[in-house]
Amino acid sequence: MESHTSNKGTDLLGLHDMTSKDYYADSYAHFGIHEEMLKDSVRTGSYRHAIVDNSHLFKGKTVLDVGCGTGILSMFAAKAGASHVVGIDMSNIIDQAQKIIEANGFKDTITLVKGKLEEAELPIQQFDIIISEWMGYFLLYESMLDTVLLARDRYLKPGGLLFPDNATIYLAAIEDQDYKEEKINFWDNVYGFDYSCIKDIALREPLVDTVDLKSVVTHPYLIKQIDLTTAKKEDLTFEAPFTLTATRNDYVHAFLAWFDISFKCTHKGVKFSTGPHAQYTHWKQTVFYTPSTIKVSESDTINGKLTCAPNARNNRDLDITISYETEGERPVTMSYKM
Amino acid sequence: MESHTSNKGTDLLGLHDMTSKDYYADSYAHFGIHEEMLKDSVRTGSYRHAIVDNSHLFKGKTVLDVGCGTGILSMFAAKAGASHVVGIDMSNIIDQAQKIIEANGFKDTITLVKGKLEEAELPIQQFDIIISEWMGYFLLYESMLDTVLLARDRYLKPGGLLFPDNATIYLAAIEDQDYKEEKINFWDNVYGFDYSCIKDIALREPLVDTVDLKSVVTHPYLIKQIDLTTAKKEDLTFEAPFTLTATRNDYVHAFLAWFDISFKCTHKGVKFSTGPHAQYTHWKQTVFYTPSTIKVSESDTINGKLTCAPNARNNRDLDITISYETEGERPVTMSYKM
Repeated sequence: MESHTSNKGTDLLGLHDMTSKDYYADSYAHFGIHEEMLKDSVRTGSYRHAIVDNSHLFKGKTVLDVGCGTGILSMFAAKAGASHVVGIDMSNIIDQAQKIIEANGFKDTITLVKGKLEEAELPIQQFDIIISEWMGYFLLYESMLDTVLLARDRYLKPGGLLFPDNATIYLAAIEDQDYKEEKINFWDNVYGFDYSCIKDIALREPLVDTVDLKSVVTHPYLIKQIDLTTAKKEDLTFEAPFTLTATRNDYVHAFLAWFDISFKCTHKGVKFSTGPHAQYTHWKQTVFYTPSTIKVSESDTINGKLTCAPNARNNRDLDITISYETEGERPVTMSYKM
Repeated sequence: MESHTSNKGTDLLGLHDMTSKDYYADSYAHFGIHEEMLKDSVRTGSYRHAIVDNSHLFKGKTVLDVGCGTGILSMFAAKAGASHVVGIDMSNIIDQAQKIIEANGFKDTITLVKGKLEEAELPIQQFDIIISEWMGYFLLYESMLDTVLLARDRYLKPGGLLFPDNATIYLAAIEDQDYKEEKINFWDNVYGFDYSCIKDIALREPLVDTVDLKSVVTHPYLIKQIDLTTAKKEDLTFEAPFTLTATRNDYVHAFLAWFDISFKCTHKGVKFSTGPHAQYTHWKQTVFYTPSTIKVSESDTINGKLTCAPNARNNRDLDITISYETEGERPVTMSYKM
């Protein structure tokens, strides 16, 4: 897959080049993530569409923006007629957000609070609407969903609205021979040396990357649906059985996961997908390589189970296991950490 | 420039996604930087060429590898006949390096030490050769050169060899209208909002990126030469006058810097360049946008001065200023932080 461009490598240049996190947090580079998110037109355009094109829902309402970043969603809400918007973020980016809302004349309509929602004192206690762009890779990696659910329980009026209000995770299987060679088997022979100890680690770390639709060899399977209006934090630890049906004779080298987001409460039910069939987003898709290649024929099924739980040491990281079996093969269970 | 692919954005996804540095340091992603460095064939191939093809220099010699990472250079030295190699690195990667040298049968030839060279106890006190891949973006950003010079003064035998032993930094001016629009002027209008406060910060942060040779509108000018056999730490803070001569009529939007590395002590004087005229390396080039566009005609000169000093708060970061003037224009001084 030529289109593959792993960001794992470049990611860590960021870490590598950073010897003082505080210092770095003030540098422009720290805003690079916001540049990428703002330039993700599927993401930002969908929120704008859901908010600005639904001013009938926002006119005169109070709005809480959880993890407001540069304040773009707060400004969309203000533009849509919100009576007052409170944006909260624990990152230094909020200092720039304050300059931005002032430069755009929202000083009186938008109040920004720097800190953790869990601890912060908000100027308003009950909101009509909560907006948040909380999604991470694989939907839940590093996601702020737990914070959004807390905000809902603590600050949303009965019958209040959540933007977005629905999320679904899908799973499929892909043919990925060439890229698996480059990313995984590469470690078998590095300038003639055996680096297989790193291969073992690489195999257990899901790869965030773009995958061509033509690599998908099974129908997608919905493994998790989250209704934000009713979901509980415990729902983010889950076990999901799946059945993947092959659409052609091929070889499977990995499972692929992606998510869809919808704003069901909007007039036209704005939604977007981060799947391989949809337009590029900065979330790309998530690839889970299998320890060995699976041979499938059209209409064959791969039956299995995916479990997902926050990592014990760092609850924004995820422990994921995928167990699967195919006709006549021994069952396999693979654990991943992301 | 279509080929532009900024890594500033993706870099920081790494930072963004990291809530526990220690935890992260153990994850595969932490090794992503090593994957990128190993797959940089100009970098790793040049070191292999300089070391393995010069076994007459390594046979029976003691070698110190400063910042050994996965141990690839140490293994090259062992393969070239070194009697003993000591590799030192403060990163967790050295735990994998230990497994790698054992898997490749170098357990007795290579000794790995985890820690800072400044504080570590080495099993050998005097070495015949010091090898190190210490270079960062713009040669000196996050570079380990100061540590390599310390290693030279403390551990290198009189007349001992340094791999590499020479580095030079070059400057040129480039036409970069389209990309400056995308990276800098983007902030003037973000979904109709004024984000210019971020534009000001963006302008002062050099951009690490690949630039097409055809964008270069002046002759390159050598602004800094470092002879590692004699350089002192103080030499890494410098002031360099420059004169850039335009090769055609065009507009200048940025200065461009890159570096060359050479192993003069080798039989054929192995060298490589990270310039826009050379094959891609993970160091790419470094772009310094000018506050305003400079109009140049063929053979016009841009006279100026570049100063470079370690940042006071974080000595692996750099404070860089570029002062320049062109015929009939007011002198400009721009300060950058990277």
